[in-house]
Amino acid sequence: GRSKTRLVSSYEDEPCMKMTVYYHDILYNGSNNTANATAAAATNPTALSTAVTSNGTYFGMLVVFDDVVTAEQALSSEPVARAQGFYFYDRKEVLNAWFAFSLVFNSTAHKGTLNLMGADLMSEKTRDLSVVGGTGDFFMARGVATISADSFEGFFYFRLKMLIKLYECYV
Amino acid sequence: GRSKTRLVSSYEDEPCMKMTVYYHDILYNGSNNTANATAAAATNPTALSTAVTSNGTYFGMLVVFDDVVTAEQALSSEPVARAQGFYFYDRKEVLNAWFAFSLVFNSTAHKGTLNLMGADLMSEKTRDLSVVGGTGDFFMARGVATISADSFEGFFYFRLKMLIKLYECYV
Amino acid sequence: GRSKTRLVSSYEDEPCMKMTVYYHDILYNGSNNTANATAAAATNPTALSTAVTSNGTYFGMLVVFDDVVTAEQALSSEPVARAQGFYFYDRKEVLNAWFAFSLVFNSTAHKGTLNLMGADLMSEKTRDLSVVGGTGDFFMARGVATISADSFEGFFYFRLKMLIKLYECYV
Repeated sequence: GRSKTRLVSSYEDEPCMKMTVYYHDILYNGSNNTANATAAAATNPTALSTAVTSNGTYFGMLVVFDDVVTAEQALSSEPVARAQGFYFYDRKEVLNAWFAFSLVFNSTAHKGTLNLMGADLMSEKTRDLSVVGGTGDFFMARGVATISADSFEGFFYFRLKMLIKLYECYV
Repeated sequence: GRSKTRLVSSYEDEPCMKMTVYYHDILYNGSNNTANATAAAATNPTALSTAVTSNGTYFGMLVVFDDVVTAEQALSSEPVARAQGFYFYDRKEVLNAWFAFSLVFNSTAHKGTLNLMGADLMSEKTRDLSVVGGTGDFFMARGVATISADSFEGFFYFRLKMLIKLYECYV
Repeated sequence: GRSKTRLVSSYEDEPCMKMTVYYHDILYNGSNNTANATAAAATNPTALSTAVTSNGTYFGMLVVFDDVVTAEQALSSEPVARAQGFYFYDRKEVLNAWFAFSLVFNSTAHKGTLNLMGADLMSEKTRDLSVVGGTGDFFMARGVATISADSFEGFFYFRLKMLIKLYECYV
């Protein structure tokens, strides 16, 4: 195919690409949701977590996921990507997390991956992760993903809205 | 607010932003420092670690942290950020680590995050991590953080000096 | 030394640097390969993994490594770097992984690090990771690493071919 050309935004309010997706995390609860679960805890909360608060803030619990990503809000709507990676809880006083993952697109619309990492400051209404790289249709992408909790049903299901803006693209 | 404009350094010796901070890691020791501790081991050293050396090099021990970051050297000096992320030890012969984390700034001086990752080659006097992204005041930042062990009091407290130079900024 | 100058590729087919290396993962098998092993599992496969498939897809198993990297295919050929970082398996149905690591070069040819992350879509013949940063000789590098399984001898040894193309360099 023809070679792509590099395009860089000069200004913060002029992204070269923009999209909204929904990330659905369905955590394995240890018993009967093996068919639906797409995430599982690889480590338990640390002793520090339970020493500080009786309910725990899950400090040190690391979750690996292969979660569904949709363009519409509903979990049952059509998947547009998978989110593959991990998060862990990292504060002893309150719930707070840190993420690193790939959005893996494999549809007629998009093939390729976006790689993200950053702090999920759960006490903020919105927070920004960095898009640090991309491949395929997202070759060499960089940008910012603004996330917000769209639904939080305890530990075993939550949904994040992700507004992704790229400022470096090859088109 | 007004839109920010992209600024990229053409030369290695001309960063667009430069700052020095101190990172303080206070690891939970399993008993009585729950009030001070800001880090905890999510995994134990692996069997390989203990098979090779009796004291162990902690190969495979993964630590999650929400550590204080100060502008002055003293732990008791004013915090300028939190460092949220993880490190793990990754050599069987000697102590050596790997880091990924966010510097979370939330002061009048700076609001936003810097995202870093890289090898902490502990046998080198100084070593460089990559600043792979940023948000807020550090929107789309990239650069290099040169770290050095400023104090190493065994496993339960160490301090790193971090000289951060950014070469891509939006100002 | 003289200051380096920034060089950015305008086109996907014109990388500013290109190299092929081989990554050798030798996983500790729990008993008698402590001398050769350069990787060890820090977490076990999750209960979700074993609940879904009797053999397991190792969902949630996280491996820390300090692996040898060579320019030639043979494990016994001359090392050109170490790969220090981690991977974990992240699908319940099939083997699939996610990597983040540093290539640590310390030879007359190259001194410095490249930092990589991304999805290792093991069911694809080739897949792309992002090179998200670099230090030393690879100061501020960005690019793409195309990996393929060059040898897969079960769990305890596998070799990946990595074709690394950089599109941002300082020279």
